[in-house]
Amino acid sequence: MTGVHEMARRVSSGDVRALARAATWIENRHSPAEALLQELFPRTGHALVLGITGPPGAGKSTLCDALTTGARAASLTVGVIAVDPSSPFSGGAILGDRIRMTRHHSDPGVFVRSMATRGWLGGLARATAEMTMLLDAAGRDLVMVETVGVGQDEVEIARLADVTAVVLAPGQGDDVQAIKAGMMEIADVFVINKSDLPGADKLEHEIKSSLALVNQAQVPPVLRVVASEGRGVNELLTAVRDARARTSDPERAARMWGSRLREMLRERLLDRFTDEQFAAAGREVAAHRRDPFSILREWTQ
Amino acid sequence: MTGVHEMARRVSSGDVRALARAATWIENRHSPAEALLQELFPRTGHALVLGITGPPGAGKSTLCDALTTGARAASLTVGVIAVDPSSPFSGGAILGDRIRMTRHHSDPGVFVRSMATRGWLGGLARATAEMTMLLDAAGRDLVMVETVGVGQDEVEIARLADVTAVVLAPGQGDDVQAIKAGMMEIADVFVINKSDLPGADKLEHEIKSSLALVNQAQVPPVLRVVASEGRGVNELLTAVRDARARTSDPERAARMWGSRLREMLRERLLDRFTDEQFAAAGREVAAHRRDPFSILREWTQ
Repeated sequence: MTGVHEMARRVSSGDVRALARAATWIENRHSPAEALLQELFPRTGHALVLGITGPPGAGKSTLCDALTTGARAASLTVGVIAVDPSSPFSGGAILGDRIRMTRHHSDPGVFVRSMATRGWLGGLARATAEMTMLLDAAGRDLVMVETVGVGQDEVEIARLADVTAVVLAPGQGDDVQAIKAGMMEIADVFVINKSDLPGADKLEHEIKSSLALVNQAQVPPVLRVVASEGRGVNELLTAVRDARARTSDPERAARMWGSRLREMLRERLLDRFTDEQFAAAGREVAAHRRDPFSILREWTQ
Repeated sequence: MTGVHEMARRVSSGDVRALARAATWIENRHSPAEALLQELFPRTGHALVLGITGPPGAGKSTLCDALTTGARAASLTVGVIAVDPSSPFSGGAILGDRIRMTRHHSDPGVFVRSMATRGWLGGLARATAEMTMLLDAAGRDLVMVETVGVGQDEVEIARLADVTAVVLAPGQGDDVQAIKAGMMEIADVFVINKSDLPGADKLEHEIKSSLALVNQAQVPPVLRVVASEGRGVNELLTAVRDARARTSDPERAARMWGSRLREMLRERLLDRFTDEQFAAAGREVAAHRRDPFSILREWTQ
């Protein structure tokens, strides 16, 4: 059993096997993970953390792959955290895409972790945040966090990422109308993937019209990419770096951390209570044997 | 200053002025509110709590008004909790609708409270839950909670209500496609309001097709109503009562309370921390002067 100090030393020296093991600690909620991250924390803050989100079918995984190739060509090390959806429908396609990442498999400069959403019960955001810290501390230059933009995920990513790219593709039904308003507001960069398909002009027009309605200090750029052929990928990397320069002010980082600390605290406080406790108390209150207020006072004494 | 015991006595005897005052205690988070609700809790469980949700423009307020008239004709007492949206766009129209409720103004059997969402900062669900308990303990037979179905509100209502009605109207753009999947899943009853307008058949067909895709033990009924003329309202009241008979099993109530207790606990635990605390800690972490883990340990010791 390797100790925490030794692991911290190895991870920060760029040891890929130690990195893989530390990632498994986080995934399994192995207890030394927190001590390790605490020790590694001073080494974080180097990576450019790029959140990649968008509806299923927009080609996010293919884009991740293309960005990885582009970043490697520029001698940057890469970490990819793929948050797979639990849906069996989209799951298939995305796993198919994921296989493509295996062409980077033999490259120690690319570290990929897929995280299934099923069964995480709300701990996914926490694990993703911890994995991001780990890859950052391990010296990865570019850390990409890919999620399907459904539910609260995109907001959590925006909190995690230095730059958030929202990926869309032409011909996805209702196009921009299908995107939730929340997604428009977190985008630092818009990517039109599969931009060689018919409808790309229309999509670009729609995005720009929607952006005109959103009240933002800085209107995010809209980039056209054909990820499967690597077209437009270097321009996107440049746009991401420019976006980071725009978004990296100390006040934003402080706000982001304030909000993450609140979320971490929430999880930690509620972790002390078990599902069984809530279920048992729920039965008492439903049967009017007890009132909810006295139970809460008892719990928070 | 009336004491808590005296208030509890008056509220449970049906005193409308005491009820109005207690409602204000809840709104203002006046400290005796909790002691009052604790004392009143054994008297709750009588009311039929009906959640009414749906997109803006579906006519939820008009429907509330029509249901109030129908319930009063059947000698039921009514409480309405209207959760107004903070949006200035829809706010205007809804306030206009609200004025119609004033025709019940002189009827002590109808108690209406509007709650603005602006500025509640997450405490709205709590206040709405407390207001529901209060109206229930005050002996109201039917308590309606009306919200605009955006964000997490509809899920919170489903947790609060015995029966949730999702209200739609023809000609609202993308109709059913605009409804989030979550809304489909919480509906115990679907209401097609303004069903005299063209498109009602199409809407009914769309709802039923969507319902066929949702995995539910009991397919909710779809009712056609013209709320502004009171058409179909008595049938809706009957459907709501039938739905309650279907949904009121002790296990569901226990689950609901378990989940509400979790939410109440979360609020209570986080209430101990101020926004300033999170902001200050966020600045420390962002500047790498401290790591987040040691801060959390300090807070949760």
